[in-house]
Amino acid sequence: MNEPLTSLQNPTVKQLVNLRDRRARDTTGQFLIEGYREILRAEGSGHPIEKLFICEELFLGSNEHPLIERIRKKGASIQPCSVNVFHKISYRDRPDGLLALAPQQRLHLSDLEKNLRPNAPPFLVVAEAIEKPGNLGTILRSSDAVGVDGLIVCDQCTDIYNPNVVRASVGTLFTVPVIAASGKETIAWLKSKGIAIVAATPSAEKEFTDIDLTRAVAIAVGTEQLGLSKDWMQEADIQVRIPMNGVADSLNVAMATTLLLYEVLRQRKKN
Amino acid sequence: MNEPLTSLQNPTVKQLVNLRDRRARDTTGQFLIEGYREILRAEGSGHPIEKLFICEELFLGSNEHPLIERIRKKGASIQPCSVNVFHKISYRDRPDGLLALAPQQRLHLSDLEKNLRPNAPPFLVVAEAIEKPGNLGTILRSSDAVGVDGLIVCDQCTDIYNPNVVRASVGTLFTVPVIAASGKETIAWLKSKGIAIVAATPSAEKEFTDIDLTRAVAIAVGTEQLGLSKDWMQEADIQVRIPMNGVADSLNVAMATTLLLYEVLRQRKKN
Repeated sequence: MNEPLTSLQNPTVKQLVNLRDRRARDTTGQFLIEGYREILRAEGSGHPIEKLFICEELFLGSNEHPLIERIRKKGASIQPCSVNVFHKISYRDRPDGLLALAPQQRLHLSDLEKNLRPNAPPFLVVAEAIEKPGNLGTILRSSDAVGVDGLIVCDQCTDIYNPNVVRASVGTLFTVPVIAASGKETIAWLKSKGIAIVAATPSAEKEFTDIDLTRAVAIAVGTEQLGLSKDWMQEADIQVRIPMNGVADSLNVAMATTLLLYEVLRQRKKN
Repeated sequence: MNEPLTSLQNPTVKQLVNLRDRRARDTTGQFLIEGYREILRAEGSGHPIEKLFICEELFLGSNEHPLIERIRKKGASIQPCSVNVFHKISYRDRPDGLLALAPQQRLHLSDLEKNLRPNAPPFLVVAEAIEKPGNLGTILRSSDAVGVDGLIVCDQCTDIYNPNVVRASVGTLFTVPVIAASGKETIAWLKSKGIAIVAATPSAEKEFTDIDLTRAVAIAVGTEQLGLSKDWMQEADIQVRIPMNGVADSLNVAMATTLLLYEVLRQRKKN
């Protein structure tokens, strides 16, 4: 085990704080995973961890040590920190004493291909230009819950390694295959695979519960403000809307996505 | 129109800032509505407004003046503010120059009774002890979208007049009838009306899409951490679960509520 990190001036502290910014993440190819549950899921899914920063004084339970031991055995270095230093490197209000530095893993559409289940029609989600990390994290959480084959993040506004995506996903970032790709290549790939693009838009005629979602589908959703871009709307095989019976004209994008994903599940279960 | 408010030391400024705290809201019976969309929905739904604080320099569009005029005609006093003062009284990062002071309106179960639709089975939501204002706001938004007869907030942790509930609800707080009541009286009232309590819990046998939701129902959901209390679980007529096919063991409570509400809508539409 390393010597405890006690100085706020240590360059490692600055390096970790910098990783909250996308530029540093893009340059280094690294990102942060904070919290017991999130790190547990990263470890469980086999995501590599380079270095684990720990602060025993902040541990909430007694399961931390076995987790640390498993991570150490896989080759990560373990770095104890003083409470002061840990509060500085943590991005949470109430840190639980665990923060991991990990390499980003970039999957491509070709990787997704291997991932498609052999005995059921493909089931994918496309999230185009989502702005709020909380929404992207929630979409990941729902994607995990229904068991999609993959989430394709197109034209990222928020990168999936944003600390708030990791947090809002409660670690499901590590269990759902996530692919970053351009809209253009994604549309071409979906078409080549015969996967129907289902676009959610308030102007669609059909409600989402009235169309067949048992076939191979990619549920596509767009930005909070403007919805899907013109490219996606034009290339969509099916447009659907979610009924809005009140005064508000739309649901939050994560809500809308969750409804569509569970409708796919419902229809497929029935058949 | 009043003289512009330019001093941060003015007691009104302190009074408005205090209303971010529940204690001041409970004592005064007042609350804050910030933002064009939210105030527009309050006004449109007939919610009374006592005083409207405005800052023209911060207006984002050109529709503010007709709205202000409608509010003024209904008897509210209009208080212009300097940019400094408005930034102080606003609870948003990017204020749009409109903040209303309004009286709380407390509905009771007896009020809800008049509100039940005559030609369809009652459709209610019960939210027990929700902690996060964002979740309560989102539940309001979904309640508006599906058109429930009312939302009963039991054993409030977060009061519905919390500024972040108003914000997360995007003003649907003013279009959905919201009742605050104890769990005990709510359960008794629902039983007396023959409204089935549908409790969402991961341990239920039946999935939410496999039970009849076309009858009179109250969809009941509980806290983020622990779900519904024992009282509600024992008195529930039907327990349902939402399938979880991934590693995470539950959805966010607002997500779960939205799924259940839309399933009611789907089943009722079909029939």
